[in-house]
Amino acid sequence: MIEPKVLKGFRDSLPQQEIVRQKLMAKVQQILRSFGFVPIDTPALEYTEVLLGKGGGETDKQMFRFNDNGGRDVAMRFDLTVPLARFVAANYSQLSFPFKRYHMSKVWRGEKPQKGRYREFWQCDFDMVGVDNAQSDFEILLLIHTCLSQMKVGSFKVCVSHRGLLNRYLSGMGISYKGADVLRAIDKLSKIGSDGVKEILAEAGLNDKQVSDVLSFISLDKSSFGKTLGILEGMFGDCDEIVRLKQIYTMMESCRIEKDFILDTSITRGLDYYTGIVYETLLTDMPQIGSICSGGRYNNLAGLYTKENLPGVGSCIGMDRLIAALEELNSPIVTDSSFADIMVVSDKNDLSWSENVAMKLREKGLRVDSYVGEKGLGQQFAYAEKNMVPYVVVSQSRDCFSVKEIATRKMLEGLSLDQIAALVKNGSDD
Amino acid sequence: MIEPKVLKGFRDSLPQQEIVRQKLMAKVQQILRSFGFVPIDTPALEYTEVLLGKGGGETDKQMFRFNDNGGRDVAMRFDLTVPLARFVAANYSQLSFPFKRYHMSKVWRGEKPQKGRYREFWQCDFDMVGVDNAQSDFEILLLIHTCLSQMKVGSFKVCVSHRGLLNRYLSGMGISYKGADVLRAIDKLSKIGSDGVKEILAEAGLNDKQVSDVLSFISLDKSSFGKTLGILEGMFGDCDEIVRLKQIYTMMESCRIEKDFILDTSITRGLDYYTGIVYETLLTDMPQIGSICSGGRYNNLAGLYTKENLPGVGSCIGMDRLIAALEELNSPIVTDSSFADIMVVSDKNDLSWSENVAMKLREKGLRVDSYVGEKGLGQQFAYAEKNMVPYVVVSQSRDCFSVKEIATRKMLEGLSLDQIAALVKNGSDD
Repeated sequence: MIEPKVLKGFRDSLPQQEIVRQKLMAKVQQILRSFGFVPIDTPALEYTEVLLGKGGGETDKQMFRFNDNGGRDVAMRFDLTVPLARFVAANYSQLSFPFKRYHMSKVWRGEKPQKGRYREFWQCDFDMVGVDNAQSDFEILLLIHTCLSQMKVGSFKVCVSHRGLLNRYLSGMGISYKGADVLRAIDKLSKIGSDGVKEILAEAGLNDKQVSDVLSFISLDKSSFGKTLGILEGMFGDCDEIVRLKQIYTMMESCRIEKDFILDTSITRGLDYYTGIVYETLLTDMPQIGSICSGGRYNNLAGLYTKENLPGVGSCIGMDRLIAALEELNSPIVTDSSFADIMVVSDKNDLSWSENVAMKLREKGLRVDSYVGEKGLGQQFAYAEKNMVPYVVVSQSRDCFSVKEIATRKMLEGLSLDQIAALVKNGSDD
Repeated sequence: MIEPKVLKGFRDSLPQQEIVRQKLMAKVQQILRSFGFVPIDTPALEYTEVLLGKGGGETDKQMFRFNDNGGRDVAMRFDLTVPLARFVAANYSQLSFPFKRYHMSKVWRGEKPQKGRYREFWQCDFDMVGVDNAQSDFEILLLIHTCLSQMKVGSFKVCVSHRGLLNRYLSGMGISYKGADVLRAIDKLSKIGSDGVKEILAEAGLNDKQVSDVLSFISLDKSSFGKTLGILEGMFGDCDEIVRLKQIYTMMESCRIEKDFILDTSITRGLDYYTGIVYETLLTDMPQIGSICSGGRYNNLAGLYTKENLPGVGSCIGMDRLIAALEELNSPIVTDSSFADIMVVSDKNDLSWSENVAMKLREKGLRVDSYVGEKGLGQQFAYAEKNMVPYVVVSQSRDCFSVKEIATRKMLEGLSLDQIAALVKNGSDD
C-alpha cells in the first residue's frame, strides 16, 4: 500500500473549498471582463533562463527547477508577471495595445512552508501594458475598487503612493544613494513601527535630522486624499508625479470613489520593480490580514526579451487572503457552498423514476443531484444534509411530489414541478 | 537579450483562444453543477511513487520527473485519474459517497510532440466514485449526452460496450488467455480496418475460425441499441452484463435519449483499467476527429492507496478536440470571442469623461473597454476593430451620445445610455 500523502506545502482542495474559490474567481473574472480585460494563459513550465534572466542566482525565488528529459534547464513559474513579460515579447505582433489582460492561475515556490504560506498557490493578476498615463493608472485603481466593493468585504481603504516622490525627497536631502536602504526600512513600517524604522535608518548611516525628515515624510496627514495631495503639492510644486496624482484624483472624484483612497507616502512595495504609483489595500475591520490587493506601475516590463519599450501598470489579488477575510466576515459567498439545490431519492423498484424527475427539474433550471447509491432512505437524507442540499424529492403521485425540507425535517406534500422550482429558487440566490 | 521562447510541446494561449476555452469550460461546468457534481483540485506536483505505484517503470508515461530541493522524487501529474484515486483515499472520511466530482485542469506528459499533441494540455474529468450499479452508469451517459447536446456539436453517437461481454465471449471460445492480445487488436479497428485486425489476431495465434468468430462478435447489427441488445441477449442470456445493459437501456428510453446511443461491441478502450461499460463519442459529421468524450467503469479506483473498495465510473472530455470540432463547425461559441461589448474613446482634454461614461455603461450590465492609449481617433477605431468590439462611444452632448458601429462604419447619433445598452445587448447573446 502506498501512503496517499501530498507534498509538504501542497494541498488538496475539497469540494466545499473549491466551490468557494471558483465562485470568487468567477466574480473577479466577470468584473475584469466588464472592463474589457481579456484572459491569457502561459505554460506552467518555462526555460529557467526566461524566468530568471541571465544573471539569475540571487533572485532564485527557490524555484522548482530541473533538467527535463531532453536535458533542458526548466522551471515551474513562480509568478505571473515574468510570464506576462515573456508572452508580450513573444506575441507582440498579434496583440493590440494598450493590452489589458488578466491571468488567474497557479504558481509554485519552493519556500519554507509556514502558516498561510504554501508552495503551490493561486494568483490573480490584471495588468495594462503599453501605456504610461494617468487614465491607465486610474483604471487599475477603479478596478480594485469595483472588485472589493462587489465582494462585500466591508469597508476598505486603497493606500496609494508614488515612488517618484520618495526619490525626489531623498534627492533633495542629498541621500539618493541610500534609496534602497530607506525603501527597505519604510516597507517594514507596519511590522516594526516607527521606532523600528528609525533604528534601521540610523544603522544605514542616516543622521538624526535625516532620520526625522524621512519619518515626517511618511507620516503626513492622511485624513483625505485631497488634503495629503495639497501638502505634497506644497512640498514639490507641479512636478510630473504631482501632476499625475492630480489627474488621477480628478478621475476619482468624477467617479465618486475618492473617499476610499488614501494618499500614503509610507507605501513603497519594497524592492519590487515599480517605478510609478504603488498601492496596497487594507480591510478596515481586518488590517491584520494584510493587503488583499497590491501592485503598481513599472516602466519597462519586457526589457529582458524585446527592444520594444513596454510600460505597464497592474495589480494582483491575494486569493487565499481574500478567502480568509471573507470567512472571518461570514460572507454568504463562502458559507453557501451547497453541492446542489435539490436531491431526488433513489427508488430501487423503478430506477428510471429518479433520473427522469431529476432531468425535468434540471430543465426548470435547478441543480439536481439524483442519489445513485444503494442505501436506505435515512442514509439518503444524511447524504443530502452532509452535502448541504436543502430539499429532497421523496415520492411522486401522478404529477404531484412530496419534498422533504432538510433543515426543518418537514415534508411538503402535493407540489408540482413548477412549485418545487419556485420553492428552491426562493431559497437560493446563487 | 533573452529569446522569449516557450518549451517544445508547450503553448501560449492568446486572448481569442483563451476566451473560447474558458467559455466552453464554463458551459461544461454549469452542466456538471446542474447534475450535483462538485469540483476538487489537487497539486500539480506529487510524489512520483504516488503517481506511478510501486512498480512504476513501464507505465512511466514519460513524466516530468525530478528531485526537488529537499531531495524528494516528485513528478508533475500526467492525468487526473491517479490524483483522484489518491485524493479519495487521503480524504475518505471527509467525503460523502457516492462522490460525484469533476476536475478541469492541466496535465503534463513529456511525449514527443506531434500535430494536435502537446506536452501540456487540459483535461476535463467527471467521475462518480463509491457505487457500482446501472443508475450511476446511466447518469454518466446522460451527462455526456447533455454536454454534447448543449454544446451544439451537431449530430453525434455515443458508442457503448461492456468489457464483461467480450470476456465471456472469449471464455466461451476457450481463449481467455489471449484476452489482452484480442483487446489490443480490436482497439485498432477504426485505424487499421477489419483486415488489419484479422492479421494481428492471426499473428497472436488465433486460428481462422477463432479470428472469424471475433470479427463477427465486433460486427453485430448496430442499427439500434435495442436491436443489438436483443442479439446479445440471445447469445448470453440474462447474465450480469446483459441485465446491467438492459437497466441502462430502460433509463435511456425513459429520458428519450436512446436514439443517440449505439451498442458497439468493438469498443474496448484498449488496455486501460476499465472493468464494466466503456464508451466513446463520435461526431456524425466529423468522425475523423476521433472520440470527443470517452470513459468507462473501473472496479477498484484507489486500491493502491486504501483498503476501501471504491468502484467508479467516469468520463473525460477532450477539450482540444472539442474546440477543433467546434471551429470546423463554425459554432458561435468559438467565433464570438469579442473582448468587450463597447468601447469609449479617450478624450485628452477631459480624461474623466471616458472613465465616467464607461462606468455608467457597466452599471447597465455592459462589458466596456475605455481606450487608455495615446493614439488618435482613427487608431482607436482600429484597436476596437482588431479586438472585435462592435461599438464605440465617440462623443457626448448633454445626455446624448454618438456611437460608431464598427461593422458598418455608421455613426448613430443622439442615443441615451439606455438606448446604447439596448442596442448592444441586441447584438450580443453572450
